[in-house]
Amino acid sequence: MRSSTYASTPKALSELNQSRIVQYLHQQGTSSRAQMARDLDLTPAAVGKLVARLMSLGLISETGSMDSEGGRRSIGLALNADRYQVIGVKFARSLVSIGLFDISGRLLDSEELPPVDPGNIPGAVADVRTRVARRLEANPAIVAVGMAVPGPYLRESGRIALVTSMPGWRSVDFIHEFGQAFRVPTFIEQDARAGALAQSLFDPRVSASSMAYFLVGEGVGLGVIDRGALVDGSQGAATEIGHVSIDLNGLPCECGNRGCLECYCSAVAIHRRMCQPDVRNHFPGVEAMTHAKACASLFDRARSGQQAAQTLVDQIADYVGYGCVTIVNAYNPAQIVIGDMVAAAGNRLLEQVRSIVSQRALPGLREHTQILLSRLPIDATLTGAAAVAANQFLEHPASMGRTAVKSTSTRRAHHPSSGKEHHDQ
Amino acid sequence: MRSSTYASTPKALSELNQSRIVQYLHQQGTSSRAQMARDLDLTPAAVGKLVARLMSLGLISETGSMDSEGGRRSIGLALNADRYQVIGVKFARSLVSIGLFDISGRLLDSEELPPVDPGNIPGAVADVRTRVARRLEANPAIVAVGMAVPGPYLRESGRIALVTSMPGWRSVDFIHEFGQAFRVPTFIEQDARAGALAQSLFDPRVSASSMAYFLVGEGVGLGVIDRGALVDGSQGAATEIGHVSIDLNGLPCECGNRGCLECYCSAVAIHRRMCQPDVRNHFPGVEAMTHAKACASLFDRARSGQQAAQTLVDQIADYVGYGCVTIVNAYNPAQIVIGDMVAAAGNRLLEQVRSIVSQRALPGLREHTQILLSRLPIDATLTGAAAVAANQFLEHPASMGRTAVKSTSTRRAHHPSSGKEHHDQ
Repeated sequence: MRSSTYASTPKALSELNQSRIVQYLHQQGTSSRAQMARDLDLTPAAVGKLVARLMSLGLISETGSMDSEGGRRSIGLALNADRYQVIGVKFARSLVSIGLFDISGRLLDSEELPPVDPGNIPGAVADVRTRVARRLEANPAIVAVGMAVPGPYLRESGRIALVTSMPGWRSVDFIHEFGQAFRVPTFIEQDARAGALAQSLFDPRVSASSMAYFLVGEGVGLGVIDRGALVDGSQGAATEIGHVSIDLNGLPCECGNRGCLECYCSAVAIHRRMCQPDVRNHFPGVEAMTHAKACASLFDRARSGQQAAQTLVDQIADYVGYGCVTIVNAYNPAQIVIGDMVAAAGNRLLEQVRSIVSQRALPGLREHTQILLSRLPIDATLTGAAAVAANQFLEHPASMGRTAVKSTSTRRAHHPSSGKEHHDQ
Repeated sequence: MRSSTYASTPKALSELNQSRIVQYLHQQGTSSRAQMARDLDLTPAAVGKLVARLMSLGLISETGSMDSEGGRRSIGLALNADRYQVIGVKFARSLVSIGLFDISGRLLDSEELPPVDPGNIPGAVADVRTRVARRLEANPAIVAVGMAVPGPYLRESGRIALVTSMPGWRSVDFIHEFGQAFRVPTFIEQDARAGALAQSLFDPRVSASSMAYFLVGEGVGLGVIDRGALVDGSQGAATEIGHVSIDLNGLPCECGNRGCLECYCSAVAIHRRMCQPDVRNHFPGVEAMTHAKACASLFDRARSGQQAAQTLVDQIADYVGYGCVTIVNAYNPAQIVIGDMVAAAGNRLLEQVRSIVSQRALPGLREHTQILLSRLPIDATLTGAAAVAANQFLEHPASMGRTAVKSTSTRRAHHPSSGKEHHDQ
């Protein structure tokens, strides 16, 4: 039996000071403590303490004295980001990818698994386990694994409550499968929440206190940061925008509802639409494509001027726009970042989304909501999975049994949004 | 010019320890410090400190020694709740009510203003100012005023972004009108958020960490408490459920969107529906009624078995149910409390709402969401307005210029969700 002692965590994201210092040094190169305090809006005392902790991990080194403004000299600090590495795993529906990152979130290498056979989900799970274990065996620098899974992910039971189009994922108990699988701790987070974390940490345009990451890919998901912390819900399953209905009499969804947003603008829905008799002759071979390939080819055709493709992209953008209207009115974020597969439609989609929001979202709010496309070089969810692991290590190195001098043998499944560890017995 | 220094407040609700002690003594009568610490899950040291602060305000007195379990004797504490009083004001669309409460949230008396003339909103504002000032003049025990206004309320500008059916409210600058009007500070909060605060403080059934208050009255609003704090939004205007669309091709709403929930189940929408040719002969005189009277008569008729009324109540309940489905999937609260005018439809409505949720909300989440009707003896929003004022006083008595020995002359408009005061210049 597992104990279920997940505390709610108002500070889940507001305590990321060590992560922010790592990000800051990653972006700046070298800096002094004083400069860092000014730029990060921290007190010199706080910076001193955080730097000391990071130095004890060997993550920061002093680089000797450097000039600073006012003619005074101070000690430069630099990051040894590759000293610790993390693995990120993104589970989508048919797509699973694994990436190796340094602790600052820089991708070192990645691999994509063969498309998941809906009839053999356990095979995909075993494959992930084998590949991650192989990487861990070969690479002692890896200190944690982060996994991003489609929502609604139920934190306490380790299960996904529902996965449209590939229900087999529901039978996977992620805590059971991965909690004790590796020599390093594993952290599991819902995909769009991991993506929100990645956006707020790794894109300097993006607010750390109020933003929404709108994942439009094989599924449709959302992670919302409000007052510096993820909107959580009693089961960790809040912000399931993919299953907020936009049409009470609309398409029936596998969740039991009708008109769920996910039925209209997910990559699965787009692929399905492309296969319909009235349009499929514009997309030769579409039936045999993967969802990802179908979307990519649609966006390519739209960009090269094909009328039918452009019309379809505009229709998709309308639905992404209705989703953004709901996000503005329901969460009032300062920013919405649209990412994942469908964001690859680019500016044509973005402009149409902005137009829908300016027509339909609440006046007084819509003018204050910035809508952006993700600019992370790597998939936000995969980066987010790594960010979840990196942050847990940076903020709680000791609780992970890992310090500069001691290597870990922790065998617990962790949940990043929980303040406490998950104990298997 | 005003400065706009509203900080976000992750601790807005998590810091209500003094309020909770007041509530506890209000409900328990007499208690010892040790008992209080156990029941409120606080450390004895924390309780000692909180009690000392409340004693210095004259709000708690020691009542002499009392028996406690184990045969030991301890000192009893009791509340002097009427020592400090607060005024709550509820602004709906056509309805404005004012209540005088003691600091524990007990209603002492209340008055309802004459229905607001849409053509003379400034007159209604002046009337509120006069009535509140008169009460303050006559009653030196009053230490704060709380006001609850329809959302979307823009915290920094002091304005309501949109008020369907009575646009005149948009022209009111609440900070300007009330910020300097009284000898005590005035706090302004969106109505459903104030209601959420009241529910979590005053109804022992209701969670203080994860709940949603679904206000279905002249307007439709929502306040969500997640991880112990209100979901806020970048402008303090999150959770505008009344303008989340349930039908992208539905009724046009004054906000610019189509199919907004508010178009289907607000008291205004219900009244409009009752006046339509196909049903109005079942409701004689309905055109001349106020929205409140029309709803009350509809619910009475349904309870007394009138078929047409029951059919209409069931249709309304469907829409309230679709709203709850969105709330479950968008916020995953442990509880939804339905309140205000339309909740008076009672169990018939509640059962239908639960049925819709069990069909349509996400499996895995819906089974864990309790749906309740408000049980507060007084309107939750009016009580909430008072609770906002009482909490501000209890948690920050010094910053309000009021202590046990010093009376206040603070003339600033305060926002309860902001950690900082609002400075007019």
